[in-house]
Amino acid sequence: MDRKQLVSAIKDKKSVLCVGLDTDITKIPMQLLADEDPVFAFNKAIIDTTKDYTVAYKINTAFYEAQGLKGWISLQKTLEYIPQDIFTIADAKRGDIGNTAEQYAITFFKTYPFDSVTVAPYMGEDSVKPFLQFEGKWAIVLGLTSNAGSADFQLQQCGNELLYEKVLHTVSSWGSIDNTMFVIGATRKEQLQHVRSLLPKHFFLIPGVGAQGGDVATVCENTLICEGGILINVSRGVTYVSSGIDFAQRAGDAAKDYQQQMAIYL
Amino acid sequence: MDRKQLVSAIKDKKSVLCVGLDTDITKIPMQLLADEDPVFAFNKAIIDTTKDYTVAYKINTAFYEAQGLKGWISLQKTLEYIPQDIFTIADAKRGDIGNTAEQYAITFFKTYPFDSVTVAPYMGEDSVKPFLQFEGKWAIVLGLTSNAGSADFQLQQCGNELLYEKVLHTVSSWGSIDNTMFVIGATRKEQLQHVRSLLPKHFFLIPGVGAQGGDVATVCENTLICEGGILINVSRGVTYVSSGIDFAQRAGDAAKDYQQQMAIYL
Repeated sequence: MDRKQLVSAIKDKKSVLCVGLDTDITKIPMQLLADEDPVFAFNKAIIDTTKDYTVAYKINTAFYEAQGLKGWISLQKTLEYIPQDIFTIADAKRGDIGNTAEQYAITFFKTYPFDSVTVAPYMGEDSVKPFLQFEGKWAIVLGLTSNAGSADFQLQQCGNELLYEKVLHTVSSWGSIDNTMFVIGATRKEQLQHVRSLLPKHFFLIPGVGAQGGDVATVCENTLICEGGILINVSRGVTYVSSGIDFAQRAGDAAKDYQQQMAIYL
Repeated sequence: MDRKQLVSAIKDKKSVLCVGLDTDITKIPMQLLADEDPVFAFNKAIIDTTKDYTVAYKINTAFYEAQGLKGWISLQKTLEYIPQDIFTIADAKRGDIGNTAEQYAITFFKTYPFDSVTVAPYMGEDSVKPFLQFEGKWAIVLGLTSNAGSADFQLQQCGNELLYEKVLHTVSSWGSIDNTMFVIGATRKEQLQHVRSLLPKHFFLIPGVGAQGGDVATVCENTLICEGGILINVSRGVTYVSSGIDFAQRAGDAAKDYQQQMAIYL
């Protein structure tokens, strides 16, 4: 999906909501465990009730990889079930030297045809560029993350700037606003406005809303641009609102509530 | 495998050789393509001829992931075929927030029972610590890599030190010499001695020998310690010496040659 199509989806739905499918087999409702593929059954139900309110789904590959082959089958079925007009993110945080990064790009753009994949920047340019060679596909590079550990390296002074600022300005020069996004943690609200000033046109994938403590209004007020320019990810705050038989309906209600908070700004 | 067992293997075999199984379906000998599982057939033949000279095998997961389910089956069969007394590395370079890092640890320590997994440090402590909670298992954290892109961030000044130096001293404080190793690129020979002085007792996984230009003598002279303390990885320089029917024999010869270069120092 290219930038024009993504912006169009945001305007049509008045939403920048991305629902995170970090589906943990130990946390899904009991009654689904009898299903042949409980993880897919859960995801399918969540997609059915949330798809009208969301412009993206983010699949956290770790939860699928931990299940071995079964997990990759659930991942593939989930990816195929997501409607074509909704942006898909493989949240895989890959990063390796050039010939290996090419294999990861093939994994997440061809073998499993996602629109985008999250990428770690530590190994530099040749670890990121292979993801920028596919028309209509995106690298979403870690900038400032929402976890406590972000202080260990990302917030350290590197020359005249903090490491995450150096990552943003360096990585943004390797690609364009049409193939590069950045992960920017929403729990650090004081930095949202600053990051937007550094990169006025790039899309940001913003996790940390809901369970991690960020809120929609702060994010929208400080990072929204005319073309949207953000995807706000909510995982547990949508998918695990209820662990009962009403889990899908409650997820849909939560997604609708987030969408309505976003619509005020769109 | 714990440190004592690894050190014992190094002393018994007079080798610190790690053979990298970055098996690319497009590069394996033609005659294997008729096999039901060409990647495993290739790996099996390589293991048969190299196992007497190597103390570790490193499986680069990207090459398997790109093949989808078939690839994960080849990976599992390869892992099961590696003799129990040889150290196994999942070269997966994972790194994510705590609850996700736990899933990656399950993936590579339980679902696929490797001895170790490579880990990216950018997201900080909570992204590394989940890998340090398993008895006899190791996190091999990216320190200084051997690719051109290492200059982009790893070699940047961060306060009083370079970023990779900060990573080494910070990450080494989270675990111990019994569960943490570091990736140190062998093509930067001027830094090998310096890195050893920073971390006198840790194991290093050293790629970059062979196709990437590093040499065994320089690495051994500057990083070997009484307990070995290094694993020198060679991938293409062993596995792709010949693309003919003699590929396995030639790989064995190459592994033996590397082992003999190492034995001088052990």
